[in-house]
Amino acid sequence: RQMLARLISHRLFEPVIMVLIVINAITLALETSPSAMAAAGPLLIALDRAILAIFVLELAARLIVDFRGFWRDPWRIFDFAVVAIALLPATGPLSVLRAFRILRVLRLVSTVPAMRRVVAGLLSALPGMGSIVALLGLIFFVFSVISTKLFASAFPDWFGTIGASSYTLFQVMTLESWSMGIVRPVMEVYPWAWVLFVPFIILTAFAVLNLFIGVIVDAMQS
Amino acid sequence: RQMLARLISHRLFEPVIMVLIVINAITLALETSPSAMAAAGPLLIALDRAILAIFVLELAARLIVDFRGFWRDPWRIFDFAVVAIALLPATGPLSVLRAFRILRVLRLVSTVPAMRRVVAGLLSALPGMGSIVALLGLIFFVFSVISTKLFASAFPDWFGTIGASSYTLFQVMTLESWSMGIVRPVMEVYPWAWVLFVPFIILTAFAVLNLFIGVIVDAMQS
Amino acid sequence: RQMLARLISHRLFEPVIMVLIVINAITLALETSPSAMAAAGPLLIALDRAILAIFVLELAARLIVDFRGFWRDPWRIFDFAVVAIALLPATGPLSVLRAFRILRVLRLVSTVPAMRRVVAGLLSALPGMGSIVALLGLIFFVFSVISTKLFASAFPDWFGTIGASSYTLFQVMTLESWSMGIVRPVMEVYPWAWVLFVPFIILTAFAVLNLFIGVIVDAMQS
Amino acid sequence: RQMLARLISHRLFEPVIMVLIVINAITLALETSPSAMAAAGPLLIALDRAILAIFVLELAARLIVDFRGFWRDPWRIFDFAVVAIALLPATGPLSVLRAFRILRVLRLVSTVPAMRRVVAGLLSALPGMGSIVALLGLIFFVFSVISTKLFASAFPDWFGTIGASSYTLFQVMTLESWSMGIVRPVMEVYPWAWVLFVPFIILTAFAVLNLFIGVIVDAMQS
Ligand code: NA
Ligand code: NA
Repeated sequence: RQMLARLISHRLFEPVIMVLIVINAITLALETSPSAMAAAGPLLIALDRAILAIFVLELAARLIVDFRGFWRDPWRIFDFAVVAIALLPATGPLSVLRAFRILRVLRLVSTVPAMRRVVAGLLSALPGMGSIVALLGLIFFVFSVISTKLFASAFPDWFGTIGASSYTLFQVMTLESWSMGIVRPVMEVYPWAWVLFVPFIILTAFAVLNLFIGVIVDAMQS
Repeated sequence: RQMLARLISHRLFEPVIMVLIVINAITLALETSPSAMAAAGPLLIALDRAILAIFVLELAARLIVDFRGFWRDPWRIFDFAVVAIALLPATGPLSVLRAFRILRVLRLVSTVPAMRRVVAGLLSALPGMGSIVALLGLIFFVFSVISTKLFASAFPDWFGTIGASSYTLFQVMTLESWSMGIVRPVMEVYPWAWVLFVPFIILTAFAVLNLFIGVIVDAMQS
Repeated sequence: RQMLARLISHRLFEPVIMVLIVINAITLALETSPSAMAAAGPLLIALDRAILAIFVLELAARLIVDFRGFWRDPWRIFDFAVVAIALLPATGPLSVLRAFRILRVLRLVSTVPAMRRVVAGLLSALPGMGSIVALLGLIFFVFSVISTKLFASAFPDWFGTIGASSYTLFQVMTLESWSMGIVRPVMEVYPWAWVLFVPFIILTAFAVLNLFIGVIVDAMQS
Repeated sequence: RQMLARLISHRLFEPVIMVLIVINAITLALETSPSAMAAAGPLLIALDRAILAIFVLELAARLIVDFRGFWRDPWRIFDFAVVAIALLPATGPLSVLRAFRILRVLRLVSTVPAMRRVVAGLLSALPGMGSIVALLGLIFFVFSVISTKLFASAFPDWFGTIGASSYTLFQVMTLESWSMGIVRPVMEVYPWAWVLFVPFIILTAFAVLNLFIGVIVDAMQS
């Protein structure tokens, strides 16, 4: 155990892990290319498995050295989760997990201190946004229920369920094709539909603006 | 009356109301789902009516306890309005009101103090925006009249009336399909149409930017 | 002349002009509606002419009272210009001027002090934006020439001339249908076109961001 | 050599170069117009060559006067590069370079001190953006690999390779037709695709917002 502790605190240990993450990023990227797979498929897969094995051993070593400390550090839990994805059986309905193996590359964030600081900074802005996000959620819920009630029968693809309406309203909030794509067609059936959507756009734009201002003012004060 | 006063100031009274609002939100959301209505329609409607009855009794109690104070508190008037919507006869042309019953969920805002503060904060930004909003309204009015005069005959759907032009210009202001959807087709008939729309975009973008800056500077100073 | 001076400085003079501007706004708006014109066309036109006559007399009075001061005050020159538009012969190729008579309504800005202050505030932000606007203009010019040279033959509608390219690049800068509408079709012919457009978007977004920041920092300091 | 030094430090030297750059901008712009080329093609090309010759002589003079100082000044290296483009043989696959001759106009930036300051200001904001840009790059890489793995077979045009996916995700990040153009069609095949794209939009919007805030806070402090 002491030997493991000395190993993982060696000054070359973290750089080696970082290099392995980058190599793994490259192999996982090349695995998406049919020509690369045709030329060197077995090598890429072997490399991927070898690096994964090293990551598993690394995390096992860290767990052995300091079990409690490991589970208290959110970055370690993150490392554990993204490595664990690759160990789940990716067969049948879970075969989609294979695509999420690349999340392992996000270990770069937990390994490089500068990235860690940036992400910590981004996360520190979240609590202050809580109440406006809750308000935005409430606005979305209310407008989703109203638009489902009003438009579900005529426009089932866009407003058939509360989920479909929420997605469509998210699209409207991002201003993507809100008029030519959604509201003008709806107005052909319900000429007064703009009464619902134009205030929704103004309301959410104003709420998002205040979300931004909150973050800016917070960033200024610190 | 004193008994009522003691009831509504009981420490469990507001939490119970809050829970009822959340249950009501769920029942109203489920009412949009045909399968949920098929499975438990009568139950959902009964729950909805029961909660509505409690809300009516609650507001009646508040009115009896402090009639004048009720009408002076804008949050109470808001509560009264969103509950009253459900009591209007939702038949014939007013059947659309049925969809607006979900507004009752907004009582969460008036009941949860943190939400109340956020909304009060958002509303406090409005007076400072007054003169720029007036200017923006004037710009919209002038450009709507001009584009109606120029393009109404060739593009009645987009510019047929001042109302249609205002809606189209709002779409242009949000940059939604302004060029491929509106201005390029208009330029096929009136090649100089960009002389109107490009300055309109720059003008409104600049006005909206200054609206934002006003809110940011206000937020900074307080 | 002294009598005129007393008239235009009467405490009711400006409010009366303001009311006339609003009435004129209404008549000019109603003139765009065929049904309003059918019902009360001659009345609307008579009202419009009467108010125009009053405006002409008002400006004449102001000119007589203080000729030099009139031409030194940019707001008065603005008033003069928007009234003069209505006096130009709106026949033949100039018939388009008829649509611009509504600009007279902008006299509200020069008459209401609060509006005047807002516009003065907006205008005061312009000089500080000069050098970035010049840089943005240079970027536009360079990219317009390059995209005209490269794409004019294959896409004459979008990039046929430097003017057409500038308009298309303005559309791309506002992110309107830049990919599905413009760049993806161009990439079908020139697969490397994104090398030009993606940097253009990032460059102009960064320049516009700095334009905004300049305005914000200026607003903060004053 | 002393004579050259006196020449390039003459108070009329820089203004003359500036005028030549502007004339060159006009000739290069006119060269894109077939009618201008038909009317005065040989003159335009002769002017272009003459001005290019002057620029080459100017840079040669600067190099002779202070060879080391030339290569230490990034603006001079920039001048050298944009002039050198015109001297490369623009034949065969390099004929595209002909379109980039207009980059010579960017010498205006290096020659006009006010433009130089603006560009220096813009560039000074870049280092502070480094770590967020790196994080954004990592997000792009991870989502590109995931969406290539998941959607390459069904949507080869949009997600066929990591490069195609990156471009499509850039389009999604700019909110251009992300829903009607990309995600709704993808959801017809993979109904859960929104689980990937909606978080991507929120994540990148939040990262870009923090990029902006970093620049604003930096600008405030200096
Ligand atoms: Na669009
Ligand atoms: Na857009």
